[in-house]
Amino acid sequence: MAIGEGMIKGTLYGLGLGPGDPELITVKAWRLMSTVEVIAYPKPPSSDSMARRIAAPFIPDDVIEMAIEIPMRTARKPAAKIYDKAAKDIAKHLDAGRHTAFICNGDPFLYSTFMYLHERLKEKYEIEIVSGVTSLTGCAAAQRRPLASRNDIIKVLPAPLPDKALRAEIASGDCIIINKVGRHFTRIRKIINELGLTGKAQVIENATTDFEVVRPLQRIDEDDQPYFSTIIIYKGSENW
Amino acid sequence: MAIGEGMIKGTLYGLGLGPGDPELITVKAWRLMSTVEVIAYPKPPSSDSMARRIAAPFIPDDVIEMAIEIPMRTARKPAAKIYDKAAKDIAKHLDAGRHTAFICNGDPFLYSTFMYLHERLKEKYEIEIVSGVTSLTGCAAAQRRPLASRNDIIKVLPAPLPDKALRAEIASGDCIIINKVGRHFTRIRKIINELGLTGKAQVIENATTDFEVVRPLQRIDEDDQPYFSTIIIYKGSENW
Repeated sequence: MAIGEGMIKGTLYGLGLGPGDPELITVKAWRLMSTVEVIAYPKPPSSDSMARRIAAPFIPDDVIEMAIEIPMRTARKPAAKIYDKAAKDIAKHLDAGRHTAFICNGDPFLYSTFMYLHERLKEKYEIEIVSGVTSLTGCAAAQRRPLASRNDIIKVLPAPLPDKALRAEIASGDCIIINKVGRHFTRIRKIINELGLTGKAQVIENATTDFEVVRPLQRIDEDDQPYFSTIIIYKGSENW
Repeated sequence: MAIGEGMIKGTLYGLGLGPGDPELITVKAWRLMSTVEVIAYPKPPSSDSMARRIAAPFIPDDVIEMAIEIPMRTARKPAAKIYDKAAKDIAKHLDAGRHTAFICNGDPFLYSTFMYLHERLKEKYEIEIVSGVTSLTGCAAAQRRPLASRNDIIKVLPAPLPDKALRAEIASGDCIIINKVGRHFTRIRKIINELGLTGKAQVIENATTDFEVVRPLQRIDEDDQPYFSTIIIYKGSENW
């Protein structure tokens, strides 16, 4: 019998590790990281892996680590090739009966790399999703203001969306969260300003970590462009 | 010196315990529950507390427990009185130097009772917010389908909103999460049907617990009205 043939396959776990504070990982993610044979994580080519950094206190010495290099911004086609290759590499471990955790910051089913692996592997392997604390509520804790209460409408709007869509969506709703701000900061700021909402917007960076910074949008200098930021506009009633 | 006077006040912790599976609590919530003197939680008058149920494996024997009775549906004014009283009761413990955790399912800053206590106590006491896994991503894990990828727009719409607002908001966006469904189920179903989106809607009950049920909306009988449900409509591209 060839290696892997007829063997019991390993399970793939998609583990959300939360927004940044290692203590915000779940008991379940902790338990699974201490029992799997392989821990895989996404990593930008020229910096370290945020997921790996969050997980550091919980990664056993004898686990097989697997860094998957994923460029921060990629067109769909080259990205698909990277995911195909990563899925194949993970499949090798699963076929050999090794339980494998793919760890990611936030939640595995919310704007995460894991979804692309899930899509490629779900037909052939057992996959368990372990939800994590998202940066959405991590940012709410950071700014010390609730996201939404009662019948407030929440919207999550990725900053790369076209101006027209952003304008239309920001115009209605109570709590507007703009994520993936990156190089779009100046453009987003302009839209928020045009809608007269600058006074209601906060800019949050590195929520729940030692480098957490929360600033009102109106106090950020024109030449300052916080790249890794989330913007939260709260238009709801603050009458609790 | 009278009791409480000049003493170091206790800290209030707002602890999110996640969507239902006790293993989805964070390491931080676990640590804090084992160190505080008082654990408070909301409780409907005629049933047990969901937060207390999630926390059960982690509550120390010698902690002071404090159940705060909060009716499921209340007009604003009587609710405000209940929160005033609860805040006063918690303040007594804090004044006596006792660290107190208020536990809630999900996240303390997302449609939670804790926000009303936070508002009443934040000027006088030190408060720390510990984010939790929300039922939003718990539901995504339950239905084994990502909430959002790439530039998908997410909306969270409380079901008690008027038809007109719901219709307008559901019409745009990629992932629509309708929470607080309760007695609004039939009305919401009708709106989704009119928008031609029934085939894209899933109904999730008790996500991440032993009683988890996920059903396509179109397979739910006319006379069935799942009260404790969340409806997720996914209109985005499933091309990963």
